[in-house]
Amino acid sequence: MADLSESELTQAVLDRVGGATDARTRVISQALVRHLHAFIAEIEPTETEWKAGIDFLTAVGQMCSDTRQEFILLSDTLGVSMLVDAINHRVAGAATESTVFGPFYVEAPTFANGETIAGHLEGTPMYIGGAVTGAGGQSLPGASVDVWHSDEDGFYDLQKLHEGQGLAGRGRFFTDERGRFHLWTVRPTAYPIPDDGPVGKMLTAQGRHPYRPEHVHFMIAASGYRTLVTHLFAEDGTYLDSDVVFGVKQSLIKPFVQRTGGRAPDGRTMTGDWIELQHDFILAPEAA
Amino acid sequence: MADLSESELTQAVLDRVGGATDARTRVISQALVRHLHAFIAEIEPTETEWKAGIDFLTAVGQMCSDTRQEFILLSDTLGVSMLVDAINHRVAGAATESTVFGPFYVEAPTFANGETIAGHLEGTPMYIGGAVTGAGGQSLPGASVDVWHSDEDGFYDLQKLHEGQGLAGRGRFFTDERGRFHLWTVRPTAYPIPDDGPVGKMLTAQGRHPYRPEHVHFMIAASGYRTLVTHLFAEDGTYLDSDVVFGVKQSLIKPFVQRTGGRAPDGRTMTGDWIELQHDFILAPEAA
Ligand SMILES: [Fe+2]
Ligand SMILES: [Fe+2]
Repeated sequence: MADLSESELTQAVLDRVGGATDARTRVISQALVRHLHAFIAEIEPTETEWKAGIDFLTAVGQMCSDTRQEFILLSDTLGVSMLVDAINHRVAGAATESTVFGPFYVEAPTFANGETIAGHLEGTPMYIGGAVTGAGGQSLPGASVDVWHSDEDGFYDLQKLHEGQGLAGRGRFFTDERGRFHLWTVRPTAYPIPDDGPVGKMLTAQGRHPYRPEHVHFMIAASGYRTLVTHLFAEDGTYLDSDVVFGVKQSLIKPFVQRTGGRAPDGRTMTGDWIELQHDFILAPEAA
Repeated sequence: MADLSESELTQAVLDRVGGATDARTRVISQALVRHLHAFIAEIEPTETEWKAGIDFLTAVGQMCSDTRQEFILLSDTLGVSMLVDAINHRVAGAATESTVFGPFYVEAPTFANGETIAGHLEGTPMYIGGAVTGAGGQSLPGASVDVWHSDEDGFYDLQKLHEGQGLAGRGRFFTDERGRFHLWTVRPTAYPIPDDGPVGKMLTAQGRHPYRPEHVHFMIAASGYRTLVTHLFAEDGTYLDSDVVFGVKQSLIKPFVQRTGGRAPDGRTMTGDWIELQHDFILAPEAA
């Protein structure tokens, strides 16, 4: 039993976690110990600061529920989610770029093309439509297209379930025989991520606003292709340069075209203002 | 709006958290982002692995309760707690060395010197006594001495509260006019840290046992001195070389002396086996 200096202590922990039989567990455990100890060694926390860190992580965990994932918010706001996204999508090629999944996905009912997912949400009617193809342009009939977005006040349905209202602003569609889908909903808005918890306190301490620029989420899956998780961002939106979760990519910024009256792409006769969002999505082949 | 490469993303997050007005918050936030992103960049997690990490941290947080602090267990088992301890106690000098606080402290009732804290615990009677002094040898009357330890089955009272039994194996004493304290209890044993949660699963994945060598906890406080948080470990105990929380220091290993009959240090006439643990504690002056 020799006493351990600080660097010897780190080595002792590395040796200990090196006992993992699974090679990947060993690699991840040792990298975690190295980087975590390097962080601690750099900041030299007081015991009070260490305790504040423990309390922060505990509060993040305790904030999690069926409808709130505060650790994903933490990952998102520290740029980790987008880093993982970038690492896993290095060769986008012609494929549509991906972005963060976010904490507000739940499986939604299936709708027929042309139906509305607005439910009880109010706002400006919005048409969303497009094609789903492979990188070679081949259309992909039967691809599933999950769509979800906030309401015009910046809340997701999940955040208002306690008010007794059900799911709204989300739905699953399937592309038709030409590989196309379209739907109606209402225009979302920029919104703050839920900032009444420990992550919100962190943002305040870091002098940051909690806003995400206006966007619609998509998750698109087709057999033989890599599932695409992405957003489309409104070109005329705010916060495009300061998304709290670093999720904006140039290719995902699209015109949310303002229309008045006329005929919608699906032939519907419109009165008043409405929005048209068209985008064709390109899926990458499944990794070999 | 330019797209961000992986290193540009890290820089963008560093710039963003650099907005913290408090300098220490800025230093900690930026160091966290640098080391966290370096960890992610090194291990290149799949999205499934990232999700497993989120789920692990969430489970750790959700395991925390009034009587269970799973994030402290995580910090302990990854050697972070002892690293923080080492950083904060670099110049021990003559002072008694410190070690981890552990998750099982709660404020305990005050006892008079010579009383027993065993409560409903069973086991071999154990006498614990010693002096509390400053580094110059000056005795410290009125110093508070918190003592806590496991039972002979390796459980703390907090882990058995649900069985309807109260606190036991813990108490607060004050040194007398000569700066001395003594008490009776029962001998603890080596024990596994609570391993029925996510930290236990981590230890299993890392090929580690969950045991701590036999020890008694002390927290000793006196006005004008730095509060000492430490253990005394049994010299004849197991796991001294593989404490799951890396808490053993050579100077804290002491004989838990086996006695039979005779007279105890406080004059009590003994029958049968008992244990004697004597140690004098030296407090460091409060940081200037
Ligand atoms: Fe969103
Ligand atoms: Fe203990």
